[in-house]
Amino acid sequence: MPVGTVGSVKGVPQDVLEELGVEILLGNTYHLYLRPGVGEIRQLGGLHRFMSWRRAILTDSGGFQVFSLTDLRKLSEDGVTFRSHLDGSSHFFSPESATQAQIALGADIIMAFDECTEYPAEGQRVRESMQLTLRWAERSKRYFEEHKNEVPWNDTSTLQLPIAGPIEIQNSKLETQKSPTAELRSAGQTRASASTQALFGIVQGGMDSALRKESAERTLEIGFPGYAIGGLSVGEPRHVTREIVEATVEHLPLDQPRYLMGVGTPEEIVEYANLGIDMMDCVLPTRAARHGLLFTSEGRISIKQAQYAADESPLDPNCRCKVCSRYSRAYLRHLYVANEILAQTLNTIHNLSFYLDTMRAVRHSISLGRGARFLSEVWSQAKP
Amino acid sequence: MPVGTVGSVKGVPQDVLEELGVEILLGNTYHLYLRPGVGEIRQLGGLHRFMSWRRAILTDSGGFQVFSLTDLRKLSEDGVTFRSHLDGSSHFFSPESATQAQIALGADIIMAFDECTEYPAEGQRVRESMQLTLRWAERSKRYFEEHKNEVPWNDTSTLQLPIAGPIEIQNSKLETQKSPTAELRSAGQTRASASTQALFGIVQGGMDSALRKESAERTLEIGFPGYAIGGLSVGEPRHVTREIVEATVEHLPLDQPRYLMGVGTPEEIVEYANLGIDMMDCVLPTRAARHGLLFTSEGRISIKQAQYAADESPLDPNCRCKVCSRYSRAYLRHLYVANEILAQTLNTIHNLSFYLDTMRAVRHSISLGRGARFLSEVWSQAKP
Repeated sequence: MPVGTVGSVKGVPQDVLEELGVEILLGNTYHLYLRPGVGEIRQLGGLHRFMSWRRAILTDSGGFQVFSLTDLRKLSEDGVTFRSHLDGSSHFFSPESATQAQIALGADIIMAFDECTEYPAEGQRVRESMQLTLRWAERSKRYFEEHKNEVPWNDTSTLQLPIAGPIEIQNSKLETQKSPTAELRSAGQTRASASTQALFGIVQGGMDSALRKESAERTLEIGFPGYAIGGLSVGEPRHVTREIVEATVEHLPLDQPRYLMGVGTPEEIVEYANLGIDMMDCVLPTRAARHGLLFTSEGRISIKQAQYAADESPLDPNCRCKVCSRYSRAYLRHLYVANEILAQTLNTIHNLSFYLDTMRAVRHSISLGRGARFLSEVWSQAKP
Repeated sequence: MPVGTVGSVKGVPQDVLEELGVEILLGNTYHLYLRPGVGEIRQLGGLHRFMSWRRAILTDSGGFQVFSLTDLRKLSEDGVTFRSHLDGSSHFFSPESATQAQIALGADIIMAFDECTEYPAEGQRVRESMQLTLRWAERSKRYFEEHKNEVPWNDTSTLQLPIAGPIEIQNSKLETQKSPTAELRSAGQTRASASTQALFGIVQGGMDSALRKESAERTLEIGFPGYAIGGLSVGEPRHVTREIVEATVEHLPLDQPRYLMGVGTPEEIVEYANLGIDMMDCVLPTRAARHGLLFTSEGRISIKQAQYAADESPLDPNCRCKVCSRYSRAYLRHLYVANEILAQTLNTIHNLSFYLDTMRAVRHSISLGRGARFLSEVWSQAKP
């Protein structure tokens, strides 16, 4: 899932995302809550309609961003008070209010409000944090069950444009979660009140396999249509990430989406897919692109380097994206060095294309019965 | 002509420019000379190939930019010494070196090196400046005649890609200027050495109609395939611009392109077309877009205003561009306020679309035998 923090994958128009084959985007509740505001987006029919995105959207709960504001937050059983990074104003997120915000945004998949445990952390601290996330998961689910019919695209009074909600969700596991009105929705007709979002639970437990197992089992007891692994990629060594993913994913059901939050490099997403992960999100392809770091089939390229100043070859000779089909490394290097806006747009389009091609190859490999492992091996042999 | 200062119309990929119907772009010699360098672009096959732009390009002579560096330049009969706005390094432009630079860039149309007279200026100063421009025009032409076969797309040794020079020039007046090899060029075949650029002369003379007449007549005596009116839109009142355009254009031949440099608003370009101007360039549509100022059939819109925060209507209900077809004012306002890169891209696409639609309407009106005046009147009636 490419990240579209405040309703835009930075620098890339929605039609280009569609051309790239993006099926689902991630939006950040924290950022959208602050600007333009969840009430404002709800009034405009929800996030799909606001940003004119006809395919699926997932919103995070805001928990990760809030917990990143280390000096600006205060935690209690009830929730967390934090200060806006924009203007210092004070706000409060609880399982209830974070879920309420996500219902107002109206994404297809929303996340339970969790505490993302810091790394490193003492054993007792990790246990208590994991238990808090479990209590918050119950509260998130309870609030959701009571309010799930309040999604903006259920409120027919706000429906004025033909684009008004999620109509192209394509995750095959999620098909089983579709409401009886899914067919109506696909046909673009008015939704019945039974149509709503999918709320996913989040497994925590730090870098402790036993706590991860306990968190997974107890989150399953609460019961969600999909499960995420949170609290990884927070500074721990990569082999630890891998160990914890392996130790956690085996406790999650095979017939429901398993979502690893906040990863990773192209090599890592292949590896995690091989471990059984179905969904991932990461700012890496888009953020790296804006800093001139480009992923190619021949390895990473820092496009600002002088060695590319007279290089007429495409960025990646094996890539068929619209950037590699048309522009030279010399031109991309010039745009970056001259601080042209187009550098950010073109670099982002290529990196997203590379990531989506990688995931297409993973799916193809799985459909051939080889698993992602096969691709991972081919990959490591192909690299210089 | 949209302005693509350093080899990019800021924020808009080349395929989108093509979709918009852009037939010719302006590149700034001064900026390209400084970065990435004209030698570098020549080595890469010229500006068309460097930026992967298959349609026409015009480069200015660098004179206007250099004369804008008021505190950083020193003028002599020979040329002008100036300091780079990027790093303060010292450089020298003369009629010969500016023409040499433009031959190296390889645009379809290049401009004689002129002195853009400041406004206001005393009568004697304007006369002397006009006379200097005439001497420089002769030197520009002499240098061009001696070196015009040195265009990068004439050097077959550098031809490696199918894209290698101007192949879609469409100005009907310029057709008559085409070399005997034009057919070969259109077919994408190797150019014969007779294929080259068109060097336009520039009329100066400040805000003095008599000096403008003298400048036009003496520039015609030197002889160019097209003529520009320079030194306007430099701070004078708009009615003065109009008077001087009228007083100048009547001395320029009807069967050769007449190019008014550096204008204008949508209303102005209709008005100047009605006076007989064939070509114009201006940063206004692109620069204004990046500052959130948008041109619409219902007047100007400053998209950052709070009144658009909940406005679900398209930017311009009469515009069929990809921005107006898909996004609401509320979304565009959000992107601008949140400082998202996409704001600059989408705003620029709309403003360019509006300008190009305006020029298409002008051409249509002319083809119906009504002239641009008709459109101008319809326009002023339609505005709120």
